[in-house]
Amino acid sequence: MGKGVAWILSVGNELLIGRVVNTNAAWLASKLTHLGYSVRRVVVVPDEEGDIVEVFREALGRADVVISTGGLGPTPDDITNLAFCKALGVDPVVNQEALRMVKEKYEARGYPLTPEREKMAMMPPGAKPLPNPAGTAPGILYEHGGRVVVLLPGVPREMEAIFEGYVEPVLRSRGPPVYFAEQELVVRGVPEADVAPVIREVMRMDPALYVKSHPKGFEVETPLLHIHIYASAEDRRRAEALVEAAVGRLKQLLIAKFGGRAEISTTQAPR
Amino acid sequence: MGKGVAWILSVGNELLIGRVVNTNAAWLASKLTHLGYSVRRVVVVPDEEGDIVEVFREALGRADVVISTGGLGPTPDDITNLAFCKALGVDPVVNQEALRMVKEKYEARGYPLTPEREKMAMMPPGAKPLPNPAGTAPGILYEHGGRVVVLLPGVPREMEAIFEGYVEPVLRSRGPPVYFAEQELVVRGVPEADVAPVIREVMRMDPALYVKSHPKGFEVETPLLHIHIYASAEDRRRAEALVEAAVGRLKQLLIAKFGGRAEISTTQAPR
Repeated sequence: MGKGVAWILSVGNELLIGRVVNTNAAWLASKLTHLGYSVRRVVVVPDEEGDIVEVFREALGRADVVISTGGLGPTPDDITNLAFCKALGVDPVVNQEALRMVKEKYEARGYPLTPEREKMAMMPPGAKPLPNPAGTAPGILYEHGGRVVVLLPGVPREMEAIFEGYVEPVLRSRGPPVYFAEQELVVRGVPEADVAPVIREVMRMDPALYVKSHPKGFEVETPLLHIHIYASAEDRRRAEALVEAAVGRLKQLLIAKFGGRAEISTTQAPR
Repeated sequence: MGKGVAWILSVGNELLIGRVVNTNAAWLASKLTHLGYSVRRVVVVPDEEGDIVEVFREALGRADVVISTGGLGPTPDDITNLAFCKALGVDPVVNQEALRMVKEKYEARGYPLTPEREKMAMMPPGAKPLPNPAGTAPGILYEHGGRVVVLLPGVPREMEAIFEGYVEPVLRSRGPPVYFAEQELVVRGVPEADVAPVIREVMRMDPALYVKSHPKGFEVETPLLHIHIYASAEDRRRAEALVEAAVGRLKQLLIAKFGGRAEISTTQAPR
């Protein structure tokens, strides 16, 4: 099930001092999941060459798709593109297409092309620059031995624009389509621990099914659970039917076990 | 500078499908930074034994403080405590103090102690359960060979309550106090790339100083930068004075270089 394993790498000290919440990783994780990938890691590393090289090497050895965010800008601590080259063991080159993209943005406003700005056009030989409709640093797409590595800027608006415009189509075209379906049940009045055996039984219905409960109220005093049901399949209708069947079975088992004690309602899945 | 290296481990499929944003990691990163630790990694892993064991082993080999969130509840996919034991190479035991905590919560409401609930009291021999004022699963504190490992639940309210009540005092007591100071400047009208050499010069003032710019507006059309300045020191006044001096020097250099083009203002640091 699924197109393969994805890792998300987030580069930036601001994430490690807690100044910024990593919304980029959640956004990318949702996108990759809906594209049929199984995201197995999000790793946040500081703006340090050694750390970035290390995590790229680890990811390259274990993931089919690697997406990084952060560290592509013009300041001295933006070094993700250079560290990625080091992880590959190649010397960075100035990509002429990328240089043209960067140059155009600055020249249109009368700014010169300084060495800091030229750095944004450096990437491994054979990489493809991705236009940045919302900023100046191009994204970087690097395909090698069946793997896809994408380096994106850390500014959410720029990261999202490049992903949707130039990365999503590439990932969508790889392998058979995979569809993802989900639903959420809200259950009041029964503690999570008592629902656990029911969830286990529903999950046994199909290996493509995943059911997880999230406690929202205090577990004993006012038990309130969100139960998230999701499935992926190569056929949209099969994914949806699986989730539908699991929701039906879940309700049936909850009512059989808890009767009127369990108050069950359905919500729209969060996205 | 600082008390040592910290790693944050986040366990939970919901983070890897993008259903939940990892606010826990940002909250803990801020706390640990202000306590004087250098957070070098946040790693998000799925609710799978192999992944959790692997990331604990990696963290134990490289960090002085390891904090995990998630996977301590009563459902079958809550396995962080058991996977941690496996990472240590020890058999989990039922901690009697933890069992009493769990039992009391359920018995007060007339619920029985099922095997799923008893699982929440299992931990490595020698570990210390941490009371959970906001839920049922106790946290786990494990100290070994100078390292501190803390396992916390994933529900933010519970995680925060246990950390503030029982983890912060332990970490505060270890090693000399470390103080963290920060300020933020907002600069309009100058592209990030032109500010880069100025930042580099200010950072050379002191190794305990870190200055980073975050582009907010479109880099060329309406350049808007937030410049974050922070420092840590074993003396609060030294940390504050360093940041103060850096802010002064930064303003002076920006005005010398850009004159009226740069519009500079100060904000309150975000926390």
